Amino acid sequence: MQKGRASIAFAHPPLICGAASVAGSKEGEGPLGNLFDIVEQDDKLGKKNWEEAESELQKKAAELAIKKAGLTRGDIRYLFAGDLLGQLIATSFGLMELEIPLFGLYGACSTMGEAMALGAMAVDAGYSDRCLSLASSHFATAEKQFRFPLAYGNQRPYSSTWTATGCGAVVLESSRGMGNPGTIGEKEKPGAAESAKQNVKGKVLAKISGITTGKIVDFGLKDSMNMGAAMAPAAFHTIWQNFEDFEWDEKAFDRIITGDLGKVGQTILWDFMARKDHDLSQVHMDCGIELYDSKTQDTHAGGSGCGCSAIVLSSYILPNIQAGIWKRVLFVPTGALLSTVSYNEGQSVPGIAHGVILEHVEDEEFARGVKALGD
Amino acid sequence: MQKGRASIAFAHPPLICGAASVAGSKEGEGPLGNLFDIVEQDDKLGKKNWEEAESELQKKAAELAIKKAGLTRGDIRYLFAGDLLGQLIATSFGLMELEIPLFGLYGACSTMGEAMALGAMAVDAGYSDRCLSLASSHFATAEKQFRFPLAYGNQRPYSSTWTATGCGAVVLESSRGMGNPGTIGEKEKPGAAESAKQNVKGKVLAKISGITTGKIVDFGLKDSMNMGAAMAPAAFHTIWQNFEDFEWDEKAFDRIITGDLGKVGQTILWDFMARKDHDLSQVHMDCGIELYDSKTQDTHAGGSGCGCSAIVLSSYILPNIQAGIWKRVLFVPTGALLSTVSYNEGQSVPGIAHGVILEHVEDEEFARGVKALGD
Repeated sequence: MQKGRASIAFAHPPLICGAASVAGSKEGEGPLGNLFDIVEQDDKLGKKNWEEAESELQKKAAELAIKKAGLTRGDIRYLFAGDLLGQLIATSFGLMELEIPLFGLYGACSTMGEAMALGAMAVDAGYSDRCLSLASSHFATAEKQFRFPLAYGNQRPYSSTWTATGCGAVVLESSRGMGNPGTIGEKEKPGAAESAKQNVKGKVLAKISGITTGKIVDFGLKDSMNMGAAMAPAAFHTIWQNFEDFEWDEKAFDRIITGDLGKVGQTILWDFMARKDHDLSQVHMDCGIELYDSKTQDTHAGGSGCGCSAIVLSSYILPNIQAGIWKRVLFVPTGALLSTVSYNEGQSVPGIAHGVILEHVEDEEFARGVKALGD
Repeated sequence: MQKGRASIAFAHPPLICGAASVAGSKEGEGPLGNLFDIVEQDDKLGKKNWEEAESELQKKAAELAIKKAGLTRGDIRYLFAGDLLGQLIATSFGLMELEIPLFGLYGACSTMGEAMALGAMAVDAGYSDRCLSLASSHFATAEKQFRFPLAYGNQRPYSSTWTATGCGAVVLESSRGMGNPGTIGEKEKPGAAESAKQNVKGKVLAKISGITTGKIVDFGLKDSMNMGAAMAPAAFHTIWQNFEDFEWDEKAFDRIITGDLGKVGQTILWDFMARKDHDLSQVHMDCGIELYDSKTQDTHAGGSGCGCSAIVLSSYILPNIQAGIWKRVLFVPTGALLSTVSYNEGQSVPGIAHGVILEHVEDEEFARGVKALGD
């Protein structure tokens, strides 16, 4: 259902029934290290080059998420996926073997939000019973794509962030078969709703009850080493738009979690929100700040890359929602829209942010049907 | 509604209510030259560099498509858009001023099919009353991104294609308000259905009655100068999957129109289809072959680039469908998934193809409601 200017509230909130995180060695040494499903000790994953390594991260995360959802690849109807590299080559070579229809996406580091939004739209509408949304990044492929050769050992300003090596993947499953109004097909089979409920109970991590899709926001910043500042206006815009569209505010959420603003971007976001009389200081968290220990890991402002928010989601955010510690979270991956061509041509660095509303699924919903927002 | 393995038949087929094509000078000199809405005489469009020129193509095409649909930018809820450049910079800088929520897409030269598929899903499901799908390419930005500096004047093999300079954009509008079953919201207002019908009659070019989403197909070809051969297996797979999913064959279509296989790819596609006992020779057309006169324009195997199929669609295919000359068309933009990094690392060039079923809207449908496939 359309909500306001840019949001959707799902009538049949898609369920996240499996999530996997595959992380690099540095990420494994950080504060969330023991939460990841797999921590690779060799950041090349035994491959010939960094790009193949990133593809391997995707393949492992996709296969593990499907396995954890108790499914096989044949159960997944559509893939929604992307990465940071030119022409999405990590995705093209990472997901080929799955042989599943693919929608390739580019939203810079906001890609996980975009992939979950489109996946949830497809599942809620009944186009797909199950789909897989994922995003990856790799420190070494990103440095090669955007900055300097690793061996050059360039110095980084304190505003810079560290591109995370990792891939996060989630399996979205329809809640239509679980006694919800509007059930398609399944309603004719006696016991189908009951069997669907039993099938997903225990593996449901969260439901996606709505989304807020971001637009391109450009405040004219040109420093590609300060992406937190470049993305903060986009994060602000999407969060504020979410508040407007759903007619609520920060008090509606246990956490509002941005993708990779880092410390510099966080300060700017809080300032922008304060000007609109919203206080984010009690509810805001940033995946880039959580992923590393900046004091000991030399990551400066924090982590970044599509993989940053994707692995923090799979390993840390979703389990907290499943446990009911957080009842409702606004997950807002943030992307900086630049390429070496654009910044060498003197362009600014616009941002984009895609919001996804994640909610805890109460036990009673397995009996009575998954509730939509406002039910 | 899900159809078979990878297809959807829309219950409320979205209507294409506006289409625009902005083409470069060489495209303007080709066989379709007088069909384009705008032919740019200066391929730099008065901008400082080629990338800004491509962004300007997008901006012009988007604004013109919206205008031709009798709308303003505020009427468009979501954008689905992409281009060939690393990190989609033509799109980021081309669509920023529209200030419309954006889903950035990368499907190489199949992007127009991907953008129309996702746009149609959003409109059919009722998430969006109207959205805009577009894709662009520019000869000079693509040469810089993928090949050699223009001034180098490199020779090209006969299997190579010429990246089209152009942007095609279409406005998709919901048919839910037009007396269709399942009308949301509008049904409560007396006369709303009648007014919706009158509003779109005359500007409806076609309806999108279904889609078939492609998977990545790799036959191991490594020649980046023969993209037609690299993409032909993907085109074959999507067309064949469409036949399987809808339980029909080439006789169901007046035209099956691929994106940019060119002459080499076309031969391969026909051969593959013949092995499955399908004869495409009477119904197949390729946008890349139609766009240029290869004898006089030095374009070798044909045209390519996301913009190739997008401008041929807007200028030539849709008007033929609107006029009823073609009643049903399978539009299959095709993409080659490669980057300079992937082919310099010795990777193959996989392909992907996204199918969109376009149908003529009969006069009686404006009175009785837009028919879905099989109605």
